[in-house]
Amino acid sequence: MPFILSADAARRPRVLVINPNATEAFTEGIRGSVSADVELDFYTAPAAHAPASIEGMTDEIHSASACICELRAHVDKWDGFVVACFADHPLVHALRELSNAPVVGILEAALLMGASLGTRVGILTTSPRWEPLLERDVASLGLSKLNAAGIVSSGLGRLDLEELPRASVIKVLCTAADVLQDRRRADVIIIGCVGLQGLEEAVGEVCQPGMVVLEPVRCGLELCLGLMRMGARTSKLGMYELA
Amino acid sequence: MPFILSADAARRPRVLVINPNATEAFTEGIRGSVSADVELDFYTAPAAHAPASIEGMTDEIHSASACICELRAHVDKWDGFVVACFADHPLVHALRELSNAPVVGILEAALLMGASLGTRVGILTTSPRWEPLLERDVASLGLSKLNAAGIVSSGLGRLDLEELPRASVIKVLCTAADVLQDRRRADVIIIGCVGLQGLEEAVGEVCQPGMVVLEPVRCGLELCLGLMRMGARTSKLGMYELA
Amino acid sequence: MPFILSADAARRPRVLVINPNATEAFTEGIRGSVSADVELDFYTAPAAHAPASIEGMTDEIHSASACICELRAHVDKWDGFVVACFADHPLVHALRELSNAPVVGILEAALLMGASLGTRVGILTTSPRWEPLLERDVASLGLSKLNAAGIVSSGLGRLDLEELPRASVIKVLCTAADVLQDRRRADVIIIGCVGLQGLEEAVGEVCQPGMVVLEPVRCGLELCLGLMRMGARTSKLGMYELA
Amino acid sequence: MPFILSADAARRPRVLVINPNATEAFTEGIRGSVSADVELDFYTAPAAHAPASIEGMTDEIHSASACICELRAHVDKWDGFVVACFADHPLVHALRELSNAPVVGILEAALLMGASLGTRVGILTTSPRWEPLLERDVASLGLSKLNAAGIVSSGLGRLDLEELPRASVIKVLCTAADVLQDRRRADVIIIGCVGLQGLEEAVGEVCQPGMVVLEPVRCGLELCLGLMRMGARTSKLGMYELA
Amino acid sequence: MPFILSADAARRPRVLVINPNATEAFTEGIRGSVSADVELDFYTAPAAHAPASIEGMTDEIHSASACICELRAHVDKWDGFVVACFADHPLVHALRELSNAPVVGILEAALLMGASLGTRVGILTTSPRWEPLLERDVASLGLSKLNAAGIVSSGLGRLDLEELPRASVIKVLCTAADVLQDRRRADVIIIGCVGLQGLEEAVGEVCQPGMVVLEPVRCGLELCLGLMRMGARTSKLGMYELA
Amino acid sequence: MPFILSADAARRPRVLVINPNATEAFTEGIRGSVSADVELDFYTAPAAHAPASIEGMTDEIHSASACICELRAHVDKWDGFVVACFADHPLVHALRELSNAPVVGILEAALLMGASLGTRVGILTTSPRWEPLLERDVASLGLSKLNAAGIVSSGLGRLDLEELPRASVIKVLCTAADVLQDRRRADVIIIGCVGLQGLEEAVGEVCQPGMVVLEPVRCGLELCLGLMRMGARTSKLGMYELA
Repeated sequence: MPFILSADAARRPRVLVINPNATEAFTEGIRGSVSADVELDFYTAPAAHAPASIEGMTDEIHSASACICELRAHVDKWDGFVVACFADHPLVHALRELSNAPVVGILEAALLMGASLGTRVGILTTSPRWEPLLERDVASLGLSKLNAAGIVSSGLGRLDLEELPRASVIKVLCTAADVLQDRRRADVIIIGCVGLQGLEEAVGEVCQPGMVVLEPVRCGLELCLGLMRMGARTSKLGMYELA
Repeated sequence: MPFILSADAARRPRVLVINPNATEAFTEGIRGSVSADVELDFYTAPAAHAPASIEGMTDEIHSASACICELRAHVDKWDGFVVACFADHPLVHALRELSNAPVVGILEAALLMGASLGTRVGILTTSPRWEPLLERDVASLGLSKLNAAGIVSSGLGRLDLEELPRASVIKVLCTAADVLQDRRRADVIIIGCVGLQGLEEAVGEVCQPGMVVLEPVRCGLELCLGLMRMGARTSKLGMYELA
Repeated sequence: MPFILSADAARRPRVLVINPNATEAFTEGIRGSVSADVELDFYTAPAAHAPASIEGMTDEIHSASACICELRAHVDKWDGFVVACFADHPLVHALRELSNAPVVGILEAALLMGASLGTRVGILTTSPRWEPLLERDVASLGLSKLNAAGIVSSGLGRLDLEELPRASVIKVLCTAADVLQDRRRADVIIIGCVGLQGLEEAVGEVCQPGMVVLEPVRCGLELCLGLMRMGARTSKLGMYELA
Repeated sequence: MPFILSADAARRPRVLVINPNATEAFTEGIRGSVSADVELDFYTAPAAHAPASIEGMTDEIHSASACICELRAHVDKWDGFVVACFADHPLVHALRELSNAPVVGILEAALLMGASLGTRVGILTTSPRWEPLLERDVASLGLSKLNAAGIVSSGLGRLDLEELPRASVIKVLCTAADVLQDRRRADVIIIGCVGLQGLEEAVGEVCQPGMVVLEPVRCGLELCLGLMRMGARTSKLGMYELA
Repeated sequence: MPFILSADAARRPRVLVINPNATEAFTEGIRGSVSADVELDFYTAPAAHAPASIEGMTDEIHSASACICELRAHVDKWDGFVVACFADHPLVHALRELSNAPVVGILEAALLMGASLGTRVGILTTSPRWEPLLERDVASLGLSKLNAAGIVSSGLGRLDLEELPRASVIKVLCTAADVLQDRRRADVIIIGCVGLQGLEEAVGEVCQPGMVVLEPVRCGLELCLGLMRMGARTSKLGMYELA
Repeated sequence: MPFILSADAARRPRVLVINPNATEAFTEGIRGSVSADVELDFYTAPAAHAPASIEGMTDEIHSASACICELRAHVDKWDGFVVACFADHPLVHALRELSNAPVVGILEAALLMGASLGTRVGILTTSPRWEPLLERDVASLGLSKLNAAGIVSSGLGRLDLEELPRASVIKVLCTAADVLQDRRRADVIIIGCVGLQGLEEAVGEVCQPGMVVLEPVRCGLELCLGLMRMGARTSKLGMYELA
């Protein structure tokens, strides 16, 4: 069990944070937003085979396949994995088949952590297309009851996020946050998109005092670190039997 | 709408039946078990990138990725698709993004058709590992209530299916069918594995008279043909917006 | 198994399409909207005992009872049945008890087929009273998860459908379709009423491109034909044991 | 509101207990097992059109149709109705359309009352065929969560109940009660069949002390009386709008 | 079984109606709104330890603890208990552990009784905070499917109820009732607050004819009386094993 | 936000681990099994008002009430709370009303963490009575889908745990673990009882290799630390509005 954190271990524990989009800028955004008392490695999906930005199932498949091809032979180097795509990305399940270490997806981590902080967790996502995709993924994970306030799209595409002035982006996000807060009665809002990192404070500021705004990559990392400190492994008896 | 069946169409409608396993023998088994009044093409996943037999999520991802790479440029040639893997294979959803034509997975088709024939549909699968995988997939599709008798594994791996004498295979399958019939009170049994084709009669013979035994590739093909005859397209407004 | 379609069968397969309302005009509407490569018989519930238009449970009971009395002795004449009432009409279940052939209700058929074409299927019905009735029926069939966009009433009663100018009817339907499309985010719309046949194109035209509009009698017939071609029988082991 | 119990009312409140089976002996069994401080009338379905014993959907339809034909013109005579068939019998819903007075089915009444007495209510029914029928009905009523211990059949048909010596019947019932108690961990058992009345004590005696055994006709009558004393009417705004 | 109602019993049956708020005025309101053909005792939680008005989980805990301390030694005096707090108050479950007699909570009673009168029961509550609390409680009781129209808050706090002119209170309640009726399509409305007693008629008057408005304390009392007349005890085999 | 971990904070973050049973020995067991890089305080419920061992709802109420009375005035001293009772203990919700800091219950923490490690999490509890109690609590938390393998009791009471030789205790636990593993197909087992700490290794040793065995207090502490490191507060907008 090389992935238990302990004082006398030969090496410090290592976590791999995976950006399954082939866009270094996203990885840099992630790198800038997290920190931990372990070795943190960051990985970007290879541009040759993975999409620059995952926008559907076809993209997820190519992204997952490209990452597995590169990572498969090296999974033993890490004691934990965080898959930084806000979806039930198939790479999460593939890595659980390929490694004994804990593997955490950021969608599930954010919902699980949100469930300890309030009772009506809502998700703020980007384009409308992600609404049915995320509904399906949340149900797949068995977590629909933890997402009582549902999923609301800001209407912004990834491109808008990069090209619009930051103030305009924030304005649109806050309108969507209002829908979650007022009409859906959310008491916790998850900023459900890797590209939205760093905007959680802006969103929090327009919400009523007492609202909790969660950034999912940090949720994923903290859940992974918690599992690692407990010495927890991925089960090898059911769905994740060694491939 | 080139995929509507009509007497005066310039060409006969064409359906592609996809075996996403890289094993020609499976494709031959499928080819031998179905027929239709349309042009039927059969496709086998490429051995260079897809697994010989899909046994988990990693396999599904490589299988789907390999098939998309080969098929993507040619999807307009067909008026309907059947993905002949007994799972919620991601290729089903990817093809729905890439094509306007109906795309049918055989797990969903068998459950939907079984729901019209009885009230407690059960699934007989191969290795125990498929039990949690299929449970997850049935839930993902929103069809858990149509699978009231659940999933029972025969304990046979794919290798056993090929190497054991046919009589032994049948004996083991029938024991599992008994569990579905007696303990789970199934009134419809789906033979949930491509490799088990042709064995539905043997299973039917050991069940009580009145039991319905369904072979899923035939279910998938008939559902696809029905959708085609109605002129139905895949919706492009929600999850399957053109990629 | 006399109901398998085959070239050498002594007689062509026969399907009975049942209008359980005692209104010939509805039957004519249905007859005009479907076609198939089998013998199609059309049946209208007897005016002496069945209601002209089914508007609740009392009506359903009288309709079912009247149809059974007339059909019971003759069920062997047909190889498949379609019950053309957009509800979980009790006649569907009674016929499954009385016959070995497949029996399809058009509500369940439309939901099952819609589930292969999109992820948020919605139902457009006539009068508000049908909303709670259909909610109950969809739940009874175990299909609530396949009806994510719910049920929306146009507010038109059956009488309005017959008496109002066609343009007015279409206008009202399109308003209801808008609710399904915009507020409920439907990607598939089922025109949930026998009296609305022939209006699916008008509805489709006002929706965004990419919307799928389904006419349930055609769904029912195609599902029935698919089951027949597979040689599928109704299970006689559970709820549909021979009466 | 003629159905409110009050001291100065011109007439005493009247309840009609309906045996929708055309068998007087069942009605006599019911009559002997209940009493109330109101006028109790007992009605037996007419033998000319209703089945002697309801054993499926066809029977339910004929039973309901026959009862409605006879009762429809007279519903104003009663201030409450109890439909004494252990099922979601369609007559319950039809009467709610036809009358303003409360209408109670004994399956729903027993589950609702059981929910106040324990947490794992189980149903003991007669023939195996009733298991899928009751599962469907409990789900239809939205009460599956109140039936945590499920439904267990004794294997006895109605004929056995009448012809076997009482000691043998009790022995078989107790075996089924054991399954509910030990394997399903029921803490409340509903004797789910009109023909089993008077046997609840025998069943109670073989169970562990502390088990609650409920007779559903009494549950139905008490729920109906409670609704009447509150002056409650059936809602006329949704599904039960006046026919 | 001292709690069976019978003509020859040495004493008349006695029911304790518990107001777990430490406010006598609420108890007087309850006393004025119910009557029964048994001895009715009314109890108010002790002001020294219980809150004047329950507004959350902390309050519920102190309320329950204070009531148990006072009542525990005397539970044998009563043949039935009604806990008059519109919530899944923990005192309900504690009393079931401490007594053999039936114990009824008014939230569950109102939902169970409403389920016999319509198909879309809605709850009208006071402050917005009760919305998530009641959602949780309804789910806990397994009754979410019986609350199809959900929970709507009037926005009034308890203080407003006491201090505002009655006409203003009624106006606000009626606005909330409108939301339940029009947007949520409720056909039964439960006035979900002990402080709102006596206002059900005012609410009923602004609703469409045919709406059913239920007052939960009366529901609780009638359900309790019904259970008592049946001689029903609380099960001692599962969750309510004697403490 | 005084509870964010940061290098320059005036004081080290502090977590309170609460044993709501009035038994110091349990607290010592907990203290011996956890460690963390923060100040850990341990609290035992006061023997004067709280039960020595929580065995039902009455006990939970007294335990929660006693803890709140002592802790209420001091909640600001801690930056996080772990309630070490394997249940949906009401103290969890009360503390969330009383404090801004994260409050974690160990039942929810163990299920949430187990969901990242396998797909069929099971719970091994002590006495049979805890089965219905835990079923209710898991449903209350909205986590039933994360507990696919259900709850199995070892049959041992708390007394047995203390008085029986350790080898006998282990033997009985292992039998129950076998049921979870073989019949319920669990791939993750939660040792669901504070008194069973330290036995997870013994249980793990008798399971098949690859099984994950979780100790819930460690899960609770790690989840709490993760929330604290993220700077997460309890939401004050919905159910946990400041009391």
